[in-house]
Amino acid sequence: MGRYHGRSTTVLKPRSTHEVSQILKWCNQRRIGVVPQGGNTGLVGGSVPVNNEIILSLANLNNVRSFDPVSGILVADAGCILQSLTDYVAPHNHIMPVDLGAKGRHSHSCQIGGNVATNAGGLRLLRYGSLHGTVLGLEVVLPDGTILDQLTTLRKDNTGYDLKQLFIGAEGTLGVITAVSILTPPAPQASNNVVLALPSFDNVLPLYQTVKRQLSEILSAFEFIDRTAYDLAVKHGQGRALTEEDVEGAECFVLIETSGGRREHDEEKLNDLLESLLTAEKPLVNTGVLAQSPSQFSSLWALREGVTEAVSKEGKPYKYDISIPLSTFQSVVDGTREHLRSKGLLHDKAVKYVIGYGHVGDGNLHLNIIADSYLPEIEAALEPYIYEVVASHRGSISAEHGIGAMKTHALHYSKSPVAIELMKKIKHVLDPNGIMNPGKVLE
Amino acid sequence: MGRYHGRSTTVLKPRSTHEVSQILKWCNQRRIGVVPQGGNTGLVGGSVPVNNEIILSLANLNNVRSFDPVSGILVADAGCILQSLTDYVAPHNHIMPVDLGAKGRHSHSCQIGGNVATNAGGLRLLRYGSLHGTVLGLEVVLPDGTILDQLTTLRKDNTGYDLKQLFIGAEGTLGVITAVSILTPPAPQASNNVVLALPSFDNVLPLYQTVKRQLSEILSAFEFIDRTAYDLAVKHGQGRALTEEDVEGAECFVLIETSGGRREHDEEKLNDLLESLLTAEKPLVNTGVLAQSPSQFSSLWALREGVTEAVSKEGKPYKYDISIPLSTFQSVVDGTREHLRSKGLLHDKAVKYVIGYGHVGDGNLHLNIIADSYLPEIEAALEPYIYEVVASHRGSISAEHGIGAMKTHALHYSKSPVAIELMKKIKHVLDPNGIMNPGKVLE
Repeated sequence: MGRYHGRSTTVLKPRSTHEVSQILKWCNQRRIGVVPQGGNTGLVGGSVPVNNEIILSLANLNNVRSFDPVSGILVADAGCILQSLTDYVAPHNHIMPVDLGAKGRHSHSCQIGGNVATNAGGLRLLRYGSLHGTVLGLEVVLPDGTILDQLTTLRKDNTGYDLKQLFIGAEGTLGVITAVSILTPPAPQASNNVVLALPSFDNVLPLYQTVKRQLSEILSAFEFIDRTAYDLAVKHGQGRALTEEDVEGAECFVLIETSGGRREHDEEKLNDLLESLLTAEKPLVNTGVLAQSPSQFSSLWALREGVTEAVSKEGKPYKYDISIPLSTFQSVVDGTREHLRSKGLLHDKAVKYVIGYGHVGDGNLHLNIIADSYLPEIEAALEPYIYEVVASHRGSISAEHGIGAMKTHALHYSKSPVAIELMKKIKHVLDPNGIMNPGKVLE
Repeated sequence: MGRYHGRSTTVLKPRSTHEVSQILKWCNQRRIGVVPQGGNTGLVGGSVPVNNEIILSLANLNNVRSFDPVSGILVADAGCILQSLTDYVAPHNHIMPVDLGAKGRHSHSCQIGGNVATNAGGLRLLRYGSLHGTVLGLEVVLPDGTILDQLTTLRKDNTGYDLKQLFIGAEGTLGVITAVSILTPPAPQASNNVVLALPSFDNVLPLYQTVKRQLSEILSAFEFIDRTAYDLAVKHGQGRALTEEDVEGAECFVLIETSGGRREHDEEKLNDLLESLLTAEKPLVNTGVLAQSPSQFSSLWALREGVTEAVSKEGKPYKYDISIPLSTFQSVVDGTREHLRSKGLLHDKAVKYVIGYGHVGDGNLHLNIIADSYLPEIEAALEPYIYEVVASHRGSISAEHGIGAMKTHALHYSKSPVAIELMKKIKHVLDPNGIMNPGKVLE
């Protein structure tokens, strides 16, 4: 997004966990800040130095340590690129439980260590759950250089506190993740998708219930795109546009993906679903377009995934990645637009569009405000407005992107003083000199 | 098991989180130990006082706070009985992601707070993953009486450290869980099972791979029972015995369960699997018995589940619940038997049987040594022998039962000095006076 530029001039690229340990020990003794950096693809400035910290690149820690095709358990260095690991397990008919790069554009170089440090979500969370469940072990170098080896390959291990969990999502502020043990699920044999046009946002929830019931265990994504987001994606050539007739009167769109073990069974379920939706007495959808080929499958996905690219082509985006109750998605988007209008900021030279899209199945809304240029008065109108709206719904101000450097001031909108105090105590226990990724997560 | 008896005479039964807070504050000021107690169904003495601590029963905190049938997110007081919650969500076509009571016998009264505090595993872990993934939020009273409210209903929330994870599996040593927010999955529409007789343990692994590939997302359990465990279950009238012909030459048995969204699809997959197994050129199985009715389904499960009861009818059991690599299951069972034989302890008046059964899908072996009576020389032969075997495989000495009071001395077999030191630091931050469940988890 071009809003964060690092000031550091020193980048170290250790080749082993032992070297990471030596670097941290050295820095800790001298009170020198360290910023761990993976693929540097984050959106909240989490891997960018705020002062003259040393950058610790994990790029040279990039070997697969082991893979067991029976259990599907993969042990890999933190610097392994997610896409490389996806390719590594593919011949064994396994997939990575986290998926950012395959369909997205940002993350061709994101690394597994960074994924874990930021508790990356992505498109497979609905199906395979969060990294807190799928990460089985970690090797972490603590700020004083001590190596914490919790690199177990066990699915079950109830022996003492589950320390590794602390480092998942800590954004490198408690130590440096040097290796990851992760459970990879078997690859589905067949995938399909469909885009549905809905006359009203109010239909999204009953549709989600119907789809969950009918598709059950083969449902692998249920994504929401509002009309403005859809129109922008089409305008910028992302994916396969539906026909004029298909989109007429549609207030929003839903993309459904299935992944299952046998193509004919999955197709039967998906066809039955479509038929029951379209022939219902009071249909929840106007129309549905089912992928008939792998290329159609990709171009339907591109409608949803291409929103990100369309947004950056259209203008300067303010991006909010929030968790709020499903039922409030549309009213939060509309409310933000009206709020900006009331401030006189909704016009060609200020905010051009307010759009919403995201993961219905995870309660995760991407709220994007697209401006002609970044302006202080827009930022002032958006914050703390949006954080207050989120807090009023007991939501999360950062569903999957993290806190990084951008949102430390806003942490209290999602976490209580008791929680923040406890986080600070834990930070102090692990990093008394405060060398790890200073200025991130906690102020 | 009758090996742990509490010495406490005071049991408090608070009716609200506020009352829990007041009790802990009072005890903390006076340095009085507190043992949180749920259903008291644990197997390692985790909820039993070791001195004259006060017992804090959660039984009166037993209301459901909310349930959202669209997202499946349930918020319940810690004292809610697991079976009651299962019954509560059933009319909405949801199930609890953890299942101990439905098929087991131990846990008719286990409570959700206790399940979370002990990170209970059970039969659904293969399908729905661990509680570290499905628990979305916790309300915890810290040892000084402060209430940590992390009772969010969000699937995604990357705002700061995920503190709730620390309390999952901490066995009540860091605070008292008073409420739980948990994601309940949609109920499967159909379930089925089959018991397969295998000529050799060596066939278990290739069978597991074949089954995973063919059943894919509908596989919900893959359980292993060795021949001795099977014979004991049958001897004590547990479940439906296979015919003489079926079991002839079988070295072990596997129970497979499917759970899916459409009965005819699931049956087709299961029948195809059986046919391909039985008609293979070099069959992995001797025979297979498929449940043809709900009562047969139950009685096949009872073969596996009844092992626990058969064991306690047969004699005095030493139970080890370990995680080790799948490929070593049988050799660890056989090795233990030979070790006892070499010590002259394998006979009618000492150890009668050494059996193995457990969750292949989770790498979790229940190793039971059944003695005529508890004898010091048997215990001396078993420990540290078994812990050393587990450590040599980088396994876990307690896969799902926890550390409790019984295994604090053995924690170092599964966790490094660095890890144990860090656990102690975290314990000290949260509970500087050491009032929470003293003598448990950490020595």
